Order: sequence, then C-alpha cells, then structure tokens
Amino acid sequence: MSEERVLLAHGDGGELMGELVERVFVSRLGTGEPPGDDSARLEGRGELVFTTDAFVVDPIFFPGGDIGKLAVCGTVNDLAAAGARPLALSASFILEEGLLISDLERVVNSMARAAEEAQVRVICGDTKVVPRGSADRVYISTSGVGALPEGVDTSGAGAKAGDVVLVSGPVGDHGLAVLSRREGLEFESEIVSDCAPLAGMVGELLRATPGVHALRDPTRGGLATALNEIARQSRVEIEIEESAVPVRESVAAACELLGLDALYAANEGKMIVVVEEARAESALRALRSHALGREAAIIGRVVDGEKGRVLMKTALGTRRILDRHVGEQMPRIC
Amino acid sequence: MSEERVLLAHGDGGELMGELVERVFVSRLGTGEPPGDDSARLEGRGELVFTTDAFVVDPIFFPGGDIGKLAVCGTVNDLAAAGARPLALSASFILEEGLLISDLERVVNSMARAAEEAQVRVICGDTKVVPRGSADRVYISTSGVGALPEGVDTSGAGAKAGDVVLVSGPVGDHGLAVLSRREGLEFESEIVSDCAPLAGMVGELLRATPGVHALRDPTRGGLATALNEIARQSRVEIEIEESAVPVRESVAAACELLGLDALYAANEGKMIVVVEEARAESALRALRSHALGREAAIIGRVVDGEKGRVLMKTALGTRRILDRHVGEQMPRIC
Repeated sequence: MSEERVLLAHGDGGELMGELVERVFVSRLGTGEPPGDDSARLEGRGELVFTTDAFVVDPIFFPGGDIGKLAVCGTVNDLAAAGARPLALSASFILEEGLLISDLERVVNSMARAAEEAQVRVICGDTKVVPRGSADRVYISTSGVGALPEGVDTSGAGAKAGDVVLVSGPVGDHGLAVLSRREGLEFESEIVSDCAPLAGMVGELLRATPGVHALRDPTRGGLATALNEIARQSRVEIEIEESAVPVRESVAAACELLGLDALYAANEGKMIVVVEEARAESALRALRSHALGREAAIIGRVVDGEKGRVLMKTALGTRRILDRHVGEQMPRIC
Repeated sequence: MSEERVLLAHGDGGELMGELVERVFVSRLGTGEPPGDDSARLEGRGELVFTTDAFVVDPIFFPGGDIGKLAVCGTVNDLAAAGARPLALSASFILEEGLLISDLERVVNSMARAAEEAQVRVICGDTKVVPRGSADRVYISTSGVGALPEGVDTSGAGAKAGDVVLVSGPVGDHGLAVLSRREGLEFESEIVSDCAPLAGMVGELLRATPGVHALRDPTRGGLATALNEIARQSRVEIEIEESAVPVRESVAAACELLGLDALYAANEGKMIVVVEEARAESALRALRSHALGREAAIIGRVVDGEKGRVLMKTALGTRRILDRHVGEQMPRIC
C-alpha cells in the first residue's frame, strides 16, 4: 500500500489540492452540477443550491473578523457566487477541550451578526469536543442552502470570449490580515480582513445587469487561482491587466516584505464578475453603488486564446502566465 | 471575563452539553423549528429539512464501519428521524498533515457505499489541511437536505400520553464497538457497530403505519438520553420496561466489564418510534419486515405523569428515574 501522505499544500486551494480532490473525492463521490463550482444544485429541485465549507483559520481572531464571521460569510459567498439568495445555514463545531467559553461566545456572536447582515439564519447545528491537542481551539463547518432567482444561471463555466472581467474591490486583504496577525507583524497601517457577506451586493448586481456569465469568490489561492478555475471550467483564456487589479498600498507593502503575491492571497469579501462586454459599465456601476463594491474595477477580459490559461499584462508591457500555484503559500488562511 | 473552559463532557450529548448548546448557541443564533430536533425545516419551504453533524470518532476505523460510513449514516438518520427522504448531502473534511492518503481513500470509499445504500449523493464538499498535531487524522462534517413526504409530521415533540414506544433493535452496539477497539479490548465475540442508514426503513414504516408521532435516532448519550429529549420536548412522561429493551449479550458483558450502561451507549443504526397505541403492532411488523429492524421491540409507553421524566421499571419490579447523564461517559464516540 502506498505510503503517500497528506501535505499542508493539499489544503491551499492550488494545484496539489485540485489533484487530491479529483483523485480522492470526485472519483468516488461524483460531482455536483456544474462540476468545479463551490456549490451544487439539488437534483430535481434545480432552483436550490447547496454548499459547504470547513473553517480552520489560525488565529481565530484577526483584524476585521474571526472564525465565526468567516464561517458565515464564506458559505453565504459560495451561494452568492452561484447567483443564489441564502435560505438557511447550518453550523457544526469541533471544540478543543480547554477552549475558553468566553472565546466561543465571542465567535458565536460574530456568526449571529454576520448572519443578520446576510439576512439568513443558522437553523441547525452540532457540537463535538475533542481532547486537548486533537484540534486547535475551534473549527467550524458551515453549509448553506440558497434559492436561485428566476432566470439566473451563472457558474464558473459561463465565461465567453469577448466578456469583461471585474473584481468587486482590492485583493489580498484577508490573507495578509490573517498572516500579519499570526506572525505578530506590525505594519504602519493595520491590514484588515475584507470578510463580508456578498449575497446582497450580488443580488443587486443581478437585478440591475443582465448578461452576467460567471461569478466566483476568490478565497484560498486568491484572484489568480479563481481566474484559473474560471478559465478551465469555461475553456477560455483570460487576460488581466496587472495595473488594473486593485491592491491596497498596505497589502502591497506587506507582500513585498513577506515575499508573497497579493494575487494569490485569500479574499473573503470579494467577487469576480464576468459579464458581456456591452454590460460591463452597467455591472461596474451596480457594484460601485453597493457599500461592499465601492472600489470595484474592470481588470481584464476573456479572449479566444489557449483554453484554461490566464495571462497577465504587466506594467512593463510584457505578458506572463498566471498559474495556479503549487505548494502552500498560506496554510490555515480560512 | 470568565475563565470557564470547554470540557470533554460538553460534547457527550448529556446534561452539560444541553446547557452549553442552550447558553452559547441557541441564545445567539435562535433555533430551527421545531426546537430540540436534530434537523430544522427551511422557512418558506416547509417540506424541506436541513441537518448537520461533525464526526470526530476515535479510532477512525472500527468493527462495522469507519468515520466515513458514520458521517453519511449519521446525517441520513437525522433526516430519517424527521420523517424525511434524503435529497442531497455535503461533506467537509479537516485533514491532519501526515494522514495516509490510502486511509483517506478507504474512508471516502465507505462514504460512497453508504450513500449508495441510502440512495443519496454527496453533491458538494470542501477540504482543509491543518498542521500535524492540530487535528487527529480526519474529521468530517456532513450536512443533508431532505424532503418530507406529504402528510408526514413527526418530531421529538409529538409524543402523546397513551402512545407506545418502540426501538428498532438492540442498543449500545456502536458505543461498545468503538470503545472496545479504542481500548484494545478483546471480547469472546467481537462487538460490531450498528452503523447503517435508516431512511429506507423509516420510509417503509411511515408508508405502512399512520399514527407515528415521534422518531429519534439514539446516538450520543444513547437510548436514555434520546428518551429524555422526547419526554422534555413532548412534555410527557415515558415509562420503559428494562427487560423489554433489547441488548446483545456481548454488549451487556462488555458494559459490565467497563462499568458502563448500555442504555447510555451510542447507536448509529437504531430508531426510537413513538406511535399511537392502536398502531403499535403494525409499526412493529413494519420495522421487523426491514433488514435493519428485524430485532425491533416494544419497550414502553408514554404516560400522563411528570412532564419530561423517563422512568424505568427494573427487572426487580422497582422503578427508577432514567436521567440524562452528567459527565462524559464516552468522548469521541461519533
């Protein structure tokens, strides 16, 4: 029997994780429809979508949020990326013996606030306790059921040549906020996670703008990984302008210091939107008119090039391939 | 700030866990409907029920199953206890760095087989990896969505004075199977977990027998705890005949040796059924006609006594109160 073992890099949203998921899970359990998305439609009830995520972020409290807020927003945003309105969430907790109950209460308070903001309720839950040393304080798995409005049909597979690519705001905030706190780094201006529930913003976008072909929230693996997923699922090439991608100065500086790339850093309150060219300005206006999309930008377009590839035009005018990364950049980022 | 901490006993399904859930979770997140059940109905779509569970069983492989089979059966059985047919499952994995990929494959194979047996699919999932020492091999959270057949309305709150209480087979198998393996105990006849998906059996019961008022799968905390939950939710007294409760000889012997009580030991393939007196024999026949209910038995009745209490008539003719237990009997049993 093979002695092959799970590596940290199997959990980072990149190439190795994709291989593990295909080989171990998809081959045995099949996939939902459409394959590759972060949610799946219920058979026979195609207007309902279902999604799940485990949250193991370290530290559990970070600037801009905590594991509870993250658990609610992450699942709401997977539903939003399907174009769905969240109907209900579930939450199951794995608690390490010795966890301060006051810390747990703080986490659950955050969940309640985030759920209220997302206009959804956590309607069922479960709690397990494991002995000290068999977990790290608290892990939360949330699942969600959402309803697709009539006529909405977005997926990572919907991008078409000619479409325009937008992102709803600056990238990398969550990844760098968590990492700075974990490493005990202090920057001149504190980096704050963008963790937020996006179902409201996406709902307004879809009501305002027909022609949205694909949505994806660029979490683990960041913008670059999410764009790669869209390019593969849609069998198109995506071309991005480096200078058009919004990155906060503080995040860029921290990336420089830590040797990281903001395009691969996690976001928890951003959405990639792929839309028909003629609707791009209207989509941009719709995003910018929402509090969570004020800094939205057009960052590139879908072209009829090499299927599955993401190219970036750099500030110097050169082009480079933006791959899914291999090897963990940031373990336990969400 | 209080220095109160999470104890192992907060996870065992007993009194302390009930208090923690009320105080930390229900007070902040509200409850689903009906409160106290292991699943909740979706608001506005009352024919759909939603449930979630985390699985942290130790060891991950045990006689009669493994954590993968358990994760599917546990969630299917929570849906079955609501009277629902499972529509779809989700699964999220927390993997410890260093886990053998062959072990993970074995677990996922079990999930696939159990899902096939339960005629449901795992349609979405998630994988996180944590560093060595931050988890114990693999934890799985499964959620499920189920559909209620027309006219089915069972909950832990439905028991009425005069009803008859059945259990679908011998109790304590799962708890003792896991504990024996964990402690490295060898008994003359190996104790095998009863882990099985019960949605088929429950579906046949509900089709064959009207008048089923309450269903519950007696997992963590065992038969005694589940009966207490029904008695509290339904505001009735339940009276059980000790000699009528089926317990395998091997389980009884192991309990004797370990100082445990089979009535508090976990089951993962049993259902408690509370039914109108006139339908009790018909319910018993329906259960016994299914492969997973061959050893079903009538074990007691619902009486108009002290609300929320469970009494047991012992073999000696005395009566004793069967409480929810306090303090962990078996950590990480599911």
